[in-house]
Amino acid sequence: MFSPMDPRTGEALGSYPISPWADVEDALVAGMRAFDELRYLGEEHLSNFLERFADRIDRRSEQIVDAASAETALPVHPRLADVELPRTTDQLRQAAAAVRMRSWKRPVISSKARIASLRESLPGVVCVFGPNNFPLAFNSASGGDFAAAVATGHPIIAKANPGHPATTRILAEEGNAAAMEVGLPSGFLQLIYRTSHADGARLVADERVAATAYTGSRAGGLALKAAADRSGNLIYLEMSSVNPVVVLPGAWRERGQSLAEELASSLLLAAGQICTSPGLLFVLAGPEADEFRAALKAELEKAPVGTLLGPSVVDALAETASAWGASGAQLVASAPSPDAIACAYPNSMMEVNGTGFLSAAAQLQKEAFGNLSLLIVCDGVDELYDCLDVLEGNLTGSVYSATTGEDDGAYATVARALRPRVGRLLNDKAPTGVAVVPAMNHGGPFPSTGHAGFTAVGIPASLERFSMLQCFDNVRDGRLPLELQADNPLGLVREVDGNWTSSPFTWG
Amino acid sequence: MFSPMDPRTGEALGSYPISPWADVEDALVAGMRAFDELRYLGEEHLSNFLERFADRIDRRSEQIVDAASAETALPVHPRLADVELPRTTDQLRQAAAAVRMRSWKRPVISSKARIASLRESLPGVVCVFGPNNFPLAFNSASGGDFAAAVATGHPIIAKANPGHPATTRILAEEGNAAAMEVGLPSGFLQLIYRTSHADGARLVADERVAATAYTGSRAGGLALKAAADRSGNLIYLEMSSVNPVVVLPGAWRERGQSLAEELASSLLLAAGQICTSPGLLFVLAGPEADEFRAALKAELEKAPVGTLLGPSVVDALAETASAWGASGAQLVASAPSPDAIACAYPNSMMEVNGTGFLSAAAQLQKEAFGNLSLLIVCDGVDELYDCLDVLEGNLTGSVYSATTGEDDGAYATVARALRPRVGRLLNDKAPTGVAVVPAMNHGGPFPSTGHAGFTAVGIPASLERFSMLQCFDNVRDGRLPLELQADNPLGLVREVDGNWTSSPFTWG
Repeated sequence: MFSPMDPRTGEALGSYPISPWADVEDALVAGMRAFDELRYLGEEHLSNFLERFADRIDRRSEQIVDAASAETALPVHPRLADVELPRTTDQLRQAAAAVRMRSWKRPVISSKARIASLRESLPGVVCVFGPNNFPLAFNSASGGDFAAAVATGHPIIAKANPGHPATTRILAEEGNAAAMEVGLPSGFLQLIYRTSHADGARLVADERVAATAYTGSRAGGLALKAAADRSGNLIYLEMSSVNPVVVLPGAWRERGQSLAEELASSLLLAAGQICTSPGLLFVLAGPEADEFRAALKAELEKAPVGTLLGPSVVDALAETASAWGASGAQLVASAPSPDAIACAYPNSMMEVNGTGFLSAAAQLQKEAFGNLSLLIVCDGVDELYDCLDVLEGNLTGSVYSATTGEDDGAYATVARALRPRVGRLLNDKAPTGVAVVPAMNHGGPFPSTGHAGFTAVGIPASLERFSMLQCFDNVRDGRLPLELQADNPLGLVREVDGNWTSSPFTWG
Repeated sequence: MFSPMDPRTGEALGSYPISPWADVEDALVAGMRAFDELRYLGEEHLSNFLERFADRIDRRSEQIVDAASAETALPVHPRLADVELPRTTDQLRQAAAAVRMRSWKRPVISSKARIASLRESLPGVVCVFGPNNFPLAFNSASGGDFAAAVATGHPIIAKANPGHPATTRILAEEGNAAAMEVGLPSGFLQLIYRTSHADGARLVADERVAATAYTGSRAGGLALKAAADRSGNLIYLEMSSVNPVVVLPGAWRERGQSLAEELASSLLLAAGQICTSPGLLFVLAGPEADEFRAALKAELEKAPVGTLLGPSVVDALAETASAWGASGAQLVASAPSPDAIACAYPNSMMEVNGTGFLSAAAQLQKEAFGNLSLLIVCDGVDELYDCLDVLEGNLTGSVYSATTGEDDGAYATVARALRPRVGRLLNDKAPTGVAVVPAMNHGGPFPSTGHAGFTAVGIPASLERFSMLQCFDNVRDGRLPLELQADNPLGLVREVDGNWTSSPFTWG
């Protein structure tokens, strides 16, 4: 048994089982039975489920956000009720639309060769490991990975984050009720509160598992990756990111104080516990850097100190601060931490110069998941380039530059270094805030994720992770999936002999 | 040093170096320098190179096919000169067109959110490990993986297959000459004849390597996969496939002898040394099965015995026959092997019934790379389904059925079992022969490849393997790649707010 902690008070919040392997095995057996039944059901069962589930979440929203707030200390307003819950139901409804529109199927037809292909469900159960920081929108039983895996026809084994089991239980209850209402098989959605690390590794490597989606720490992700890789199973990971932000001097001269406020509020959003929170801030030495440091310090020190998600987050932040300190970084801003909160850390900024960063680049890229950031003051654009050029893969990279053109030379240099290293490049905008739109990429080169070709957010692209490419060669037209038949009964836009068209075609 | 063998005579053919790590390290250093220079060159350098290289191969075709025939014993006509060489140059030219048309870039625009994304080069060098059986079209210095990795902007480290180093050297010479002619940096194409297994593993795990493409044995592929996976590097593998073929009784009654001839010639194409060669033949017990066995036996025993690629192929075939025999399979057809050929194996077929197959399914799925196949006689459609349902992932699966509709019930059952297990499903067609068209999938579930979402053949899809998803969030229009700019200067068809269009758009 285990008990999550109320991060405000330190009190235990209920008690939950740790599943032995026998329970995981039962879940796999039931999940595979559900997968086999799903293959006989029409796709409208999946879209109906996704919409019914979204409606049920809306109807029980008050209880859901209250549970999530109690377990995570994230505020009900605006965060949980006004931002995260609507995003969660929007993702489910977008996934339902993707099922109806077949937008993830990508039909391609080579008519003369009599060959056609599309994306189909990768056979098996999908396991979702949700993170601590988004109890709804990335919840293993309701979030983006869940929605994408359901939309591609998979039963789910949801591994609850141990920080918010009560929230996950309510969501799984509503998910199961919605599944029963629309006639999905039992075993479609199964919840595991917690397992041993060894059983988690065994699960992701099991031959009945099509793929795993994991969002969490790098250490946990790499351990699961090793297990899945050994067995040939697919695993998609979002592991860590320090999200470099570059503030060029012209941008500071142009926007000064408002820029400091924008960045401070991004840094402190959810007490810095956002996957895309800016961890490394790069500036060029000079009066602008001095003003920037002073303004950001003032913002961090006057802002209220947030409650962190749990004691492990506090410990990890202290460990990162200590590693940065041992690598030559100095503390330059630190707000007092209120004693009344069980899990808190002072809003903090440390600093190092470019030479110092280059001499300990690996240690200084250690993630600070929370309200701690590192300012790197570089001696000119060349040193800035060199610093960016040693960065590991990240989810995002942001550049603030003047609108007058005066920073354009430096911008070009910075963008050339950042572009291949980040999944999303931003201009004049803080990286926190991930719009759920088709062009979004919430991914990036290793080690921010496990494969730079995929995204965890953005529909239909996020669905591709759970698909396989299926090709039909000389298969009789009436035996083809409807998406590929010559007369285009579904009216889809398809790639036929190199052209995008919704017209019928003739086999060669 | 090592020497490949003439598989006809057993004589040594020249002598080639085994590279120590220092040479591999030099190749990586030169490759990364080339990658950095490539980023400043326009994409037309890549398309010009691909076309110039194809032209050079055409001009030196006689010498190339002679070298390949000497090293592999594959016939100059029709195989090398009339099929494989034209396919090789066609792939290079199709890749050049994909560079020009940007057809692999998949631009997606969410205009209101001011977010746009596309595919870009995954940073680093690409390593290509070519197989023994396609010395031109899958050659590490000229084949499909090479073309795809070049088209996505990568310098190549080509690891020659040790079975045909002279062929690879000529191709690399022509590749280098073409690269110099169009102004690509030196270090763009580098050749390694052979390394130790340990150095191969070190190479694919090196942080300067963007990705590796490997075609070869399962054991070799799994060893490289383990090394790449541990470092977070991407690797695409084509490892093994037994390519099940199901012949339903109505098809036999309808097409009898011509079907036996078609299958025998597929089985014996290149002495069975084709990735998609039919290894397992499934029939339903009855008079049709008896006639099928007799007809195929006659075809196999009267056909000439081909020369195999080398002694390791002969040994592996004997090993598979022995493993199948130990698992209960009986030899039912065997042509005499001519003593005059150094590397040969009798055209052979073994047989087991469905119960026998199910009781030793893992052993009986051991790949027979060459002129040996296994006939599985099933007692009814249910047993046939059960046999297909235990198959590992394969590149292809074929079903022959009557055109009258009498096999349609059995077809539905067979197709339901095969579809999730194969990358390409065929009707009334042998699986050998891989058309290079956009809808082709030359891939499949593990262990036939490492990731069922990707294909090694088919342009532009095969290029995606070497790409990363790059997203631009609020980036000023003039700073965007041309593919994403609002006025669509390249005139591409793009996905804008869910619609496929070549029209300009307005940012929200």
